[in-house]
Order: sequence, then structure tokens, then C-alpha cells
Amino acid sequence: MSALVLDDEDTFKILIATDIHLGYLEKDAVRGNDTFVTFDEIMKHAKENEVDFILLGGDLFHDNKPSRKAMHSCLEIMRKYCMGDKPILFDIISDQAVNFGSSRFPWVNYQDENLNISTPIFSVHGNHDDPTGADGLCALDLLSCAGLVNHFGRSRSVEKLEISPILLQKGSTKIALYGIGSIPDERLYRMFVNKQVTMLRPREDEESWFNMFVIHQNRSKHGATNYIPEQFLDDFLDLVIWGHEHECKITPARNEQQLFYVTQPGSSVVTSLSPGEAVKKHIGLLRVKGRKMNLQKIPLQTVRQFLIEDVTLANHTDLFSPEQPNVMQKVQAFCQQKVEEMLEEAERDRLGNPLMPEKPLIRLRVDYSGGFEPFTTMRFSQKFVDRVANPKDILHFTRHRESKDNAIDFDMLLSRPSSEVLQLRVEDLVKEYFQTAEKNMQLSLLTEQGMGKAVQEYVDKEERDAIEELINYQLEKTQRYLQERRVEASEEKIDEEERKEKRKEVRDGADEAREELTGLGGRREDEVREQDCR
Amino acid sequence: MSALVLDDEDTFKILIATDIHLGYLEKDAVRGNDTFVTFDEIMKHAKENEVDFILLGGDLFHDNKPSRKAMHSCLEIMRKYCMGDKPILFDIISDQAVNFGSSRFPWVNYQDENLNISTPIFSVHGNHDDPTGADGLCALDLLSCAGLVNHFGRSRSVEKLEISPILLQKGSTKIALYGIGSIPDERLYRMFVNKQVTMLRPREDEESWFNMFVIHQNRSKHGATNYIPEQFLDDFLDLVIWGHEHECKITPARNEQQLFYVTQPGSSVVTSLSPGEAVKKHIGLLRVKGRKMNLQKIPLQTVRQFLIEDVTLANHTDLFSPEQPNVMQKVQAFCQQKVEEMLEEAERDRLGNPLMPEKPLIRLRVDYSGGFEPFTTMRFSQKFVDRVANPKDILHFTRHRESKDNAIDFDMLLSRPSSEVLQLRVEDLVKEYFQTAEKNMQLSLLTEQGMGKAVQEYVDKEERDAIEELINYQLEKTQRYLQERRVEASEEKIDEEERKEKRKEVRDGADEAREELTGLGGRREDEVREQDCR
Repeated sequence: MSALVLDDEDTFKILIATDIHLGYLEKDAVRGNDTFVTFDEIMKHAKENEVDFILLGGDLFHDNKPSRKAMHSCLEIMRKYCMGDKPILFDIISDQAVNFGSSRFPWVNYQDENLNISTPIFSVHGNHDDPTGADGLCALDLLSCAGLVNHFGRSRSVEKLEISPILLQKGSTKIALYGIGSIPDERLYRMFVNKQVTMLRPREDEESWFNMFVIHQNRSKHGATNYIPEQFLDDFLDLVIWGHEHECKITPARNEQQLFYVTQPGSSVVTSLSPGEAVKKHIGLLRVKGRKMNLQKIPLQTVRQFLIEDVTLANHTDLFSPEQPNVMQKVQAFCQQKVEEMLEEAERDRLGNPLMPEKPLIRLRVDYSGGFEPFTTMRFSQKFVDRVANPKDILHFTRHRESKDNAIDFDMLLSRPSSEVLQLRVEDLVKEYFQTAEKNMQLSLLTEQGMGKAVQEYVDKEERDAIEELINYQLEKTQRYLQERRVEASEEKIDEEERKEKRKEVRDGADEAREELTGLGGRREDEVREQDCR
Repeated sequence: MSALVLDDEDTFKILIATDIHLGYLEKDAVRGNDTFVTFDEIMKHAKENEVDFILLGGDLFHDNKPSRKAMHSCLEIMRKYCMGDKPILFDIISDQAVNFGSSRFPWVNYQDENLNISTPIFSVHGNHDDPTGADGLCALDLLSCAGLVNHFGRSRSVEKLEISPILLQKGSTKIALYGIGSIPDERLYRMFVNKQVTMLRPREDEESWFNMFVIHQNRSKHGATNYIPEQFLDDFLDLVIWGHEHECKITPARNEQQLFYVTQPGSSVVTSLSPGEAVKKHIGLLRVKGRKMNLQKIPLQTVRQFLIEDVTLANHTDLFSPEQPNVMQKVQAFCQQKVEEMLEEAERDRLGNPLMPEKPLIRLRVDYSGGFEPFTTMRFSQKFVDRVANPKDILHFTRHRESKDNAIDFDMLLSRPSSEVLQLRVEDLVKEYFQTAEKNMQLSLLTEQGMGKAVQEYVDKEERDAIEELINYQLEKTQRYLQERRVEASEEKIDEEERKEKRKEVRDGADEAREELTGLGGRREDEVREQDCR
């Protein structure tokens, strides 16, 4: 592979990065600029290495509707690094109208005569910045419309995927670039199981292509169908670039079954204080020549340090025991000492790296099993407020689980960005609300599932119209149903009919009313299925 | 002036438009696309007339934080019409770093080597799309960062304005373009009165410049200092382009005192059903040669028709009288007949104009003084639901005012976009809340004024952080005050001190507490003044 390090006219140089989460904690006085600073660093690496293009694996933005500041910073950085006179030395030989069909300008930005692009960006969307709402737009569409990003891997169908690769050629090297923007894992899992995912291959010289695939899904198993097993992916692939997972495992790992490599670049910002995020963060400089590749790791300089350590109080009975009167002070002093050591370690690491932010993220997980008690952390936080970026949540108290009944794996939850933890909770809350609400308080024309999804959309994606849209949808459905029963279109009568329906539903209870609608309209089951797929 | 219609190398051709309000009612099933369609038309006129540049007078967007759809449509239309190979035939000879100092790319977009601009846009911001929040950004900043708009007329100071013109030259014609983005009228009024507004003039050949000024303020008097009198403006000006006012009065009107002309293009979309908005809408094609100008009116084809009429029931006692038992039906039939006539008139007008939307806006103002009663409009609306764009608010019932005490002029209010009416209401509601709240429920650390402003910001501009920012500001202020009293920085003591303060304030009542704070800190008055100016 050493020949690959020599750049020549046949060698693609591609910068790969993912999960940049622009705007994450942007209001935080200490960490507010972290994502923008690191995005700037990433783009600078692309420029300095004179890559042919940048390939992003989704979640460029943390929020589905990025703040004005986040969008402004992104536009600024992209315009600064993506434009200029450096010639583009590769061609696109696939049908761009197919590859970029969802864009208003369905061609690659560097071939637009009005834009002087030096470093094109290709990106799929992630789960944080996926298309939502009636307009089906996502944040990348704004960048694409501004001519700064080539957004690919987007599908309109929820049952079937047919992926046409972007076919790239530089000298004698040919890359087929496949991608799927984030889709709910269960849905994509089902599509794979039902053999509804097809990756189209160029007819000519099938063997001459280097086949790359960008995916933004769970790679680790979160429940039976809540991830995408690597063996689902076609074995003609050469390299899979896996987004969404935040732990940096960028060195390509060979899947011995499928005979392809998987690189998982990981996020460029720490979005949860879990062990996976403490792994040193990198981006990759991928070289492809013919069907050979080399991936050079580039450590990111601007990423805030994150140190995590575990202590088990029961292992230190030489220092304190639960019975001592002043055990709490001793434990506090012990934890304080640990954090001091971690801070020293962080400072040693930071030496000679002026780009690294001064205050590290510190997490000390304290196992207090065996009769110890957690203590309030306010005063503890106060001691580190000027030296740690996260003074309020340095300490995390845990205890051995006594039984295995509690099936929630909090570590696993924590390895996801925090807003996804929130997702689960909101869903649960909505479910609980509808389950425990008085029967006559239940919304008779609205389904629990539909309402739950609408509320979740409202919370997660700031889709202010999600609930209104659902209600309109359900109202229209009801009106259609009433019209089909040949109720004359006088408003009084519709009102009367609706009132009757409501009284009946309330009387019969929600379950029976549901059955009745199913029987009468014959459409309800379909609609439930349709909602499932949203 | 006829020579001016001949375009030559010395003649500037400028398209002027204002108050496009992109995104206004974008969720409306009938009117949702109106603003985008008309913006497209405006830009098409610019292209077809091969203008040198487009000059916008503010309120390009209706919402301070435009929806993703609004921003996307805007980017799409601008990229489509502003980019291309048409050469730019004029120069900027002023210091661009001054003119566009607030931009990350402080130079005119058509001189950026990476952008192929055919038709540059110059714009000030309006009151709907003004800079807000901690980042001080506005929607135009995103467009400016994307290289599609040249945003000027922005000031950082709230007490003093020094306006450096953009100096433009085409052949022998020289234009000095001044602008002020929207500022609260009272504040700008005060600055003018205090002689804090300075318009800088080029030293050389002072008399050779055509001086243009773009302003987005109240032109009609809304209270003593809540507008900008024309005589405030410097008399060296040749043409004032007045945004904000929605009525099209585009034909330049001479101010005989100041000896300049004022053109008020008016909005390109009807945002309120008031007489001013019923005036036929135009944009302008301004030609400037030497110090002569000519303004050609271009009627907009895509604007939804709006017909407004008044009826006074008491004038039709030949048809009905309040005493008749079926007077309500007769009045309804009468109104219905009126609306039918208006619809016929609209249809005649629309004949031969395929670009005009089919359903017009109709407003019938019914004066029911003299013993008549208003009727519920639901059934009335139903009759026109398929033929009128605003079926729900066709009718507007009014009555002669008996006394003149009620000083609110609703017509004047209605001539503003509806969200500004809302502004007033929110402010009133907040004030009322704080005035009527139980004394012990009042927020002791927060001022009414500050909270009122924060809530208004939250509502109007969707500044989600406005309230949080205010609270942090007040907390910090309190902490600073406590620290200055040399209270030791132990959290418990601060808590205790705060509790004491609160108890004291509750006991003394809000007014006395306010006096006490003023006396102790000596800073409170300044802060109030500071808040005034925000």
C-alpha cells in the first residue's frame, strides 16, 4: 500500500468525517463554539491536504432546524474553504439528475458555471438533520441550494430503496459512491429483510470499480431490529463509511464474512460523557487508487479533551468505610483527589498543543455500592468551576444493579446524544398520558400512535406544525368517511354526525370505537401501517 | 426626461421593490405560495430589464426567523436570477469594508472571484427581519454569507448613526447610496432630534452625485415620535426610497420643503385587509443619468387581487329596517349580493391575465350603526369558500364611534401587518399581568419592563433565549450587587441574602423595593436607560 501515499493523477484523495453536530451546546458559555472551531479545523485539513472532495456521513448539524448562528457559521466556513481556484481533477460519469434529484439544482456544485468550487462536499443526512415536515426539506437542502453541498442518498420511498451510485473517475481510478441518508433503523432493517434494498451497479467493467458506501445508522445492536447488521450490506462493497456512532474506530476493520472494510470515523465533538466519546477523535484522509485504498488517520487538534474514570468506593475500605461518622467528607476528598489527578493528566496531554481548549471535560463515575451514599455535588462543582468545562456533571454515581429485570442499559443510552434519550422519554410520557387519561378525556378522532408521533416530531425536530398537520389529516379522513356514507354536505349535519360519532365512541370506549372505524371504513388498518412507515 | 428612457453607458438601471414578506401565510392552503411567486416575478422583471442592480427596502422576509421553506425558496430564486454571465457595468468606489462591515465577506458579491453574479441585490433590513439575539444576526446575514445579497445600512450603535454611502459609478453617472435598516421609530426619531444622525458626503465633486436614501420606518404619523418626518432627512438628497409602508405610492412625490423626491413602492403582498393594501401593486424601474432620474412603474402580475368596499346599512332603509322580523336574512342577502358584485369585478379585471391567482381577497366593511346587528359569518363564509381566498374574514362589522375618547385608530392599526397588531397586544397583556398580579407573586429580581421586552422578543422574533438571557442578566446584576456589598462568596450566604432581599421586597412592595435598589446600586437608572435603547 505504500505506493498509495504518493499522490498521482490516478489517486483519489478524500477527506472523511462525520457527526460534526454543528450547534451542539452552542449556548454554553465555555463549550458554545467547540463545534464550529472543530468544523473549521476539519475543513482546513481538507484544504491543506488538497483533497479531491470531502465526504460527510451525516449529522453535520445537531438540530434539525439549526439556529441562525449555526447556519451562518456553517455557510461562512464552507464558503471560506470550499471555494477557490484549485482545479477539480475528477469527473462524475453517472446521471447527476438521478444522484442529486432532490435538489433544485440537480447537478454537482463544482460543475455549476456560476460557482468556483475548489473542494466539493458530498454528504448524506443524519438522524439529527433529516428531512421533516410537509416540505420534506432538511438543513442540507439549504446548503445545497446555496451551492455549497452535494446532498445525496435521499429516498422518497419508505418501502423500497434503489440506490444509484455516484460514479466518479480520476485518471484510471473509478469509484462508485453509494449512500443512504438516515432512516429509522427498524424501517431500514425491515427493508433489508424484505429484500427491498437494491444497490445498482454500473454494467460495464463491474470489477473495475472501487465501491464505497456511506451509511448513518446504529451499528451496535439496540434491540433486535434497531440496528443494521453489517452482513445486510452487499458483499461487492469495498469500504463502508459508518456514521452515527460517535466512538472513533476509524481504522478500517475487515468484515471477514462480507470481505469488505468498515471505517467508523466517529463524531468530532463529545456529545455525551460516555466512554466511547473519550476515545481520541480523528478524521480520515482516504486514498483510493485502482481498487486499493489507504486510510490515514488525522488526529483533531481542537477537540476538547474528555477524560473518564471509574472508582468503586468499596475497593477503598482502607481509606473510609460506610460506618465512619465523617465518611462523606472522606469520600468527597477522595473524589476531589481523583479529579485533580485527571486534571493533571489532561494538562500534560495538552502541553504543546495550543489549539486544544483549556478546560477539559471530566467524568468520574463513582460506584457507591456497599452501604455508601452519594453526596450533593453543588459544592464539589464549585471547586472546579474554573478548570473544568462541565463542572456541574463531573460526578456520576452508580450502583451495582441487584436484579437484571431493569432491562434499560443506561450506558447504551448514554452513548447516544442526549436528545435521543429525551426522545424515548417523550414517547413514554405521551403513551402513559394516553393510557392513564380518563376514557372520556381521550381524543376520539385522533389515534394515540399518530398523536404520539406528532408530539415527538414537535419536540425533536421543532416541527411546529406536526400536531396541526396530524389533526388536519385526521379531520380530512373523518370528513371523507362521512361523505362516503353519503351524508349531505351541510355543515350542520356533519357537525351532528361528528357529535354522534364522538358520543358513541365515548360510550363504547376507545377500543370498541377503534374496531368500529376499522369495520366501517375498511381503511384504518392501512392507515395505521402507513403511519408506521413515516 | 425622455432621453432617460434610452439606456446607455451612463444610465443606471435599478429595480426597486420592498416589503416582499417572503413566507407570509406560507401555511395557508390557498395563499401559501403567493409571496414566493411574486418574488420570482420581481426577480424576473429585474432579469428581463437587464438592470444594473436590485435595491430592496427591507422586510424581504415576514418572519424574523424564516422557516426552512421560506429560506430555501429565497435561496433558490436568488441563485436562479442573480447568477449568470451578464457583465456588471458599474463600479463601487467607496470603501467596501465600511459599507459591508457587518458581513463575514465584507465586499460586494459581484466582485467575489468565486461567485458569478449577474444581478447584485442591495438591501437594508426591515422591522420584520432585523438583527436580534446575542449573535446580532438577521436573515439577510445568511443570504449575505451565501454570497447572494449585499446587506447595508446596519449600525451597531443605538445612540448615533454615521452613514457612509455606497458610492457607485457607471460611466459618468455617480450615485451615493445611503441606507438605514429598520430601527424602532422612537429611537431613530430621538437620534434625529438630538442631531446624532450624520450622512457623510464624498468630499470631491459634491454636486455631481445623485444621492439616494433607503429607509424602512413609519412614514405616516403613529403618535408624536413614532414615525420619521420627511423634513428630518437631509435636503441634499435627491430621492428617498421609503420601505415599510405597504400602500403603493411609487410615483416619486416632491417634498417642497426639502426639495427631494420620495418614492414609496409599497409591499408586493397584501398582509392586511385595509384600504392601503388594495391599491394596485407595483415595483419600480429607476433610471438615473447624471443627476436626472426617471421612475417607470411596473405593475405586478402575480399579486392576488384585493377588493375592499364599505356599505352602511342605515343608508339602505328602502331595503330593510332594524325592526323587520327577517331583517337579518335581508341584510345577509344584501351583503352576499355585494360580494357577488365584487367577485364579478375581480373576474373582469383578471381577464387576460393568466398569472393572477384565481381567488381574490374580498373585504366588505359593513357599518351596522342605527340599530342593526352583526350576524355570524360562518354560513356566509361557506358560500364563498371556493371562490374567495379569505372566506373566513370577508365581512368586517364596524360601527360609528359615539365618542372620540377611544383614541385607537383601528384603520391605522390595520394598515400595519397583523403581527404588529399582535405586538401591541402582547405588550399590553404582559403589562396587565404584572399590574394585576398579587404582590407576593411578582418577580422580585426581574423588572417588569425587562420581562415585558423579553417576552415580546420571544413572541415576535422567536428568540427562544430572550427570557433566559434576561434572567441571567438580572441574576448577574444581583450577584454583582451582593458581591460589592462584600458578602462573602459562600453560596449559602448568597442564598440567604437573596432570600432576605426577596422578603424585604415583598414586604415593602415593589415600588419601594425599586427605590431601594436605585439608591443602593446607583446603577439602576443607567440600566433602565440601557434597556430602553435595546
